Amino acid sequence: MKIVLKSPLDMHLHLRDGDMLESIARCSSRYFAGAIVMPNLVMPVTSIDEVISYKKRVLKAIGDDKFEPYMTLFFKSDYRYNFLKEAKEYIKAIKLYPSGITTNSEGGVSSFEIDDLRETLEAMSELNIPLLVHGETNGFVMDREKEFSSFYEKIALTFPKLKIVMEHITDKNSVELLNRHDNLYATITLHHLLITLDDVAGGLLRPHLFCKPIAKRYEDREALQKVALNGHPKVMFGSDSAPHPRDKKESCGCAAGIFSAPVALSALCELFEKNDKLENLQKFISDNAIKIYGIKPIKKEIVLEKKEFLVPQKYGNVVPMFAGEKLSWSSYESTSS
Amino acid sequence: MKIVLKSPLDMHLHLRDGDMLESIARCSSRYFAGAIVMPNLVMPVTSIDEVISYKKRVLKAIGDDKFEPYMTLFFKSDYRYNFLKEAKEYIKAIKLYPSGITTNSEGGVSSFEIDDLRETLEAMSELNIPLLVHGETNGFVMDREKEFSSFYEKIALTFPKLKIVMEHITDKNSVELLNRHDNLYATITLHHLLITLDDVAGGLLRPHLFCKPIAKRYEDREALQKVALNGHPKVMFGSDSAPHPRDKKESCGCAAGIFSAPVALSALCELFEKNDKLENLQKFISDNAIKIYGIKPIKKEIVLEKKEFLVPQKYGNVVPMFAGEKLSWSSYESTSS
Repeated sequence: MKIVLKSPLDMHLHLRDGDMLESIARCSSRYFAGAIVMPNLVMPVTSIDEVISYKKRVLKAIGDDKFEPYMTLFFKSDYRYNFLKEAKEYIKAIKLYPSGITTNSEGGVSSFEIDDLRETLEAMSELNIPLLVHGETNGFVMDREKEFSSFYEKIALTFPKLKIVMEHITDKNSVELLNRHDNLYATITLHHLLITLDDVAGGLLRPHLFCKPIAKRYEDREALQKVALNGHPKVMFGSDSAPHPRDKKESCGCAAGIFSAPVALSALCELFEKNDKLENLQKFISDNAIKIYGIKPIKKEIVLEKKEFLVPQKYGNVVPMFAGEKLSWSSYESTSS
Repeated sequence: MKIVLKSPLDMHLHLRDGDMLESIARCSSRYFAGAIVMPNLVMPVTSIDEVISYKKRVLKAIGDDKFEPYMTLFFKSDYRYNFLKEAKEYIKAIKLYPSGITTNSEGGVSSFEIDDLRETLEAMSELNIPLLVHGETNGFVMDREKEFSSFYEKIALTFPKLKIVMEHITDKNSVELLNRHDNLYATITLHHLLITLDDVAGGLLRPHLFCKPIAKRYEDREALQKVALNGHPKVMFGSDSAPHPRDKKESCGCAAGIFSAPVALSALCELFEKNDKLENLQKFISDNAIKIYGIKPIKKEIVLEKKEFLVPQKYGNVVPMFAGEKLSWSSYESTSS
């Protein structure tokens, strides 16, 4: 049994930089036609020069794979119209991080007063640059995303023409927000469709399943599955694949992030098949994103074949999701594409 | 500034066996006059011979420290009156584990029907042997203890003369149960008085703070602190100190357990002082347990002195709670005792 996915897109990806970028970039570029590349490098990407030079490094790392890195800027509240107008030629979106909320987010936003953000968000709205948001407060870990929802509602109402993507949503409350505001969209990761806090901390503690936002409850996972599996038009796949060296994961203070890029298509295929929803995978993996972002991705066909895929224990020094386990679908680029 | 604790008791302790026992036993026997020693060895302690021989090994490991190990049996629903009558000479309590719920609990209880437990619990009630319970269901990790409360209520009502200790309680619901049933008691750990899930998984993932039951919410910690700090007569200190070798904690599947024995008295002193409740520490650390268990511990005075205690990074190959951090109280045995 085979299915063909047209131009799969990963609308939330961490490619890192330097050796790590070199080591893992092809885990994405082999299977996807493009990806939104997150800007939270150790020195966040905040200038056009940095966007250009980071994109060059990404393109070098992927070699001759057919893959379009959609670049982003790290949100700063002092970006103004003229800068953004020029930047728009080089980026597809701007990512807002609350300060200190996740890996390399220390330079993020610390005031969520609309007045402190107004000029930048108005310019983005006018220029039709989507705002991507890591939506968590610094409250109790299981409540952070829910607590953030008042901010989502506030910016959705204040800037009705601004496209706002709630990144890697994890709870049922965020799913409900999708239907409440026309200009709210969402990405959903593979892992939040599959795991709950029980998988992270219910048996042994599993550092390789530790991510931010943390996986939540069964009813949250169910709400996420429902919109993803049904191809809800405002929902896109974004892996949030985030590699860390093994020794940063299996240590006394384990960094947040799950490396899912090389297993994402196979595992999604399994999930959609199990729920008898394979016909909606194309929407979730590409079509919805194309409409939401108004992009024309590289034409690339990825074949998913029902053939055992034994996931490697490591890619370089990074342990992937499902390391050493067997998935029932394998993926490769169609030779006809 | 100094205070003296009379015969501090740790009413829930894992001393392990073999090399680990030899390596960590004195971390308890140096600071405590006695401890309830848990029976969940790799081969659980289920016979009188095993109790006797385990106690010998414990006594050998503590050398000439003045310390009484209060032995326990691993609950089995086929223990009968005559066996228990004889066992009573050698044990202070019996510990019930739901099957598979934590470290070495595979041989635990799988049916919670009263009829399946009745004969054993009736005999224990008649013989006045306390029942110690690891109270968790196999539900969602944050709800397990709360879900277990219906079982606590059922056995408390069915066996009104049986002393039931809810071990290492972690949520406010369990605190409420204490006041609802005369025959329900509780131990509380150091770590559940200090941490929440935020400390385990809210920033970096901290395997050395991973334990079962998992640390819960701020309101839960507050409820636990309230009864402990006020010396609630049904509440005893039980460290649940549970050493694992460092490589079992910092790994791709980290075992549950926090090694707090060597820091427990210092850290408790800090907590009680900060809350201006030092006068209640003696109740929490010894007096309540003496009354609840009806025991006469070895006379031993431990001095807590306000003097910096730099916690070692490791004891043998075990990383303690507060490794490398400074506590403001040091403890040692009084030379006059």
